[in-house]
Amino acid sequence: LETLLGRLFDSPVEIAGSGRTDAGVHARGQTASIVLPGRITEAEFTGRLNDRLPADIRIQKSEEVPADFHPRYCKTRKTYEYKICNRRFPDPCRRLYSLFYYWDLDERKMQQAADYLVGTHDFTSFCTVRAQVKDHVRTIYDLSVIREGDMITVRITGNGFLYNMVRIIAGTLLRVGSGQMEPEEMKHVLEAKNRELAADTARPEGLTLVSIAY
Amino acid sequence: LETLLGRLFDSPVEIAGSGRTDAGVHARGQTASIVLPGRITEAEFTGRLNDRLPADIRIQKSEEVPADFHPRYCKTRKTYEYKICNRRFPDPCRRLYSLFYYWDLDERKMQQAADYLVGTHDFTSFCTVRAQVKDHVRTIYDLSVIREGDMITVRITGNGFLYNMVRIIAGTLLRVGSGQMEPEEMKHVLEAKNRELAADTARPEGLTLVSIAY
Repeated sequence: LETLLGRLFDSPVEIAGSGRTDAGVHARGQTASIVLPGRITEAEFTGRLNDRLPADIRIQKSEEVPADFHPRYCKTRKTYEYKICNRRFPDPCRRLYSLFYYWDLDERKMQQAADYLVGTHDFTSFCTVRAQVKDHVRTIYDLSVIREGDMITVRITGNGFLYNMVRIIAGTLLRVGSGQMEPEEMKHVLEAKNRELAADTARPEGLTLVSIAY
Repeated sequence: LETLLGRLFDSPVEIAGSGRTDAGVHARGQTASIVLPGRITEAEFTGRLNDRLPADIRIQKSEEVPADFHPRYCKTRKTYEYKICNRRFPDPCRRLYSLFYYWDLDERKMQQAADYLVGTHDFTSFCTVRAQVKDHVRTIYDLSVIREGDMITVRITGNGFLYNMVRIIAGTLLRVGSGQMEPEEMKHVLEAKNRELAADTARPEGLTLVSIAY
C-alpha cells in the first residue's frame, strides 16, 4: 500500500493501521489512515489503488477523517471470528479460512467455558509471553460459540486484544470442546494469570478480523 | 490419485471419474471408481490416500460397489452451484470461490429467465461448439437463483450437463440480471439452438460441482 501510494503521489506516504494481524490471519475489517500529500477524490483513491493492488488486498471504502484521527489510539470495539471445520476429513474448499479439527467438539461446553471470559479481566494467561504490552486488562463484551453443521464459529468482541489472545482462547476452547478440560477450569486458567495453563496458540488460518467499530 | 494408488499397490491403477470439471472449477461431490489390485479396508484406503494427497484433494468417503458400477454411465442427478459476489469491490476472502460482479444484479429477473430452462430441452445454445457429444438434449430438474446479502447462488440440478453448459447458463443469467437482456429472451435463446445467442462462458472460479446422486 505504501509503495503504491508513494508512486501515486510521487512522494513517500506512511500508513497507520489499527493494529497488526499475524501471517495467515485474514482481515475483512482492517482500518488504516494516511496523511495524503495531495488531493484526490474518495472514489478515485479507492479505484486507483484497487486496480493496482494484488488480488488478496482490496480497499472496501475510504473517507476523509479529522486530522487527529488515529485508527489505533481510538476507543474501538473489535470483532474477530475463529472458524473450526469439525469433520472427519479436511474440506479443501474451506482449508484456507478455517482450522480443520478431527475430534468431536461439544459446542455447548465450549460456550460454558467461554462465558467465564466475558467481562473485564487480566488476560495474562491468554497472551504470548514475548508480547511487550504491560497492561493485560481487557474487556470482552461478547464471546459466542455457534455451530452450523460441521462449522463452529467462535465470535469474540472486545475493546482490544493482546498478542495472540484470540488464537490462545480458541485453542483453549478446543481443549474444552474435545473433553480434555472441563468448562469450569477456564475460570482457574483465567485467574492464574499464567500463560502455561492455557492451550497452544491455535493455527492462524481459522482467524478473521471481522470488524472494528469506532 | 493414480500415482499414489499405483505406489500403494505396487501396480498401476486406473480411475474412472463421473466426469470432468474444467480447470478452476471446484468439485465437492466428485465420484470416482477403481478396480483395486489388492485388498484394503475402506478406512485404511481413505486414510492412507488423504495422508499423502496434496491439500486441495481429499477423499471424503469410500465404499465397495458392484463390479459393474461405473460413475459415468449410471443415471444420476448432478447439482452444481455458480456463485456471484455482487458488490462494489472484490472480497479477497471469497475470490477463489465466486465470480466478482460489479454491476447491480436483479435476482428476480434472473429467476424468471432461469425458469425457461427447466425441463427437457435441446441445450445446443448453451454448449461450447467444439464439444464432441452429438445428443444435446438434457433435463434440468431445478434451477434456482438465491440472493443472500451480496452473494447470489445459481443452483442447478439435472440429469447431465453439456460441455461448459452451467457456465454459459450463468453468463447468460448475468446478462439478464444486469438488464442487458429481458428474462423472456431466454426462451428465444434456448429455442434457437445457436451458441452465439447465449452469453460468454462465465469464469470457472464461481462454479462448484456440489453433488452427484446415483
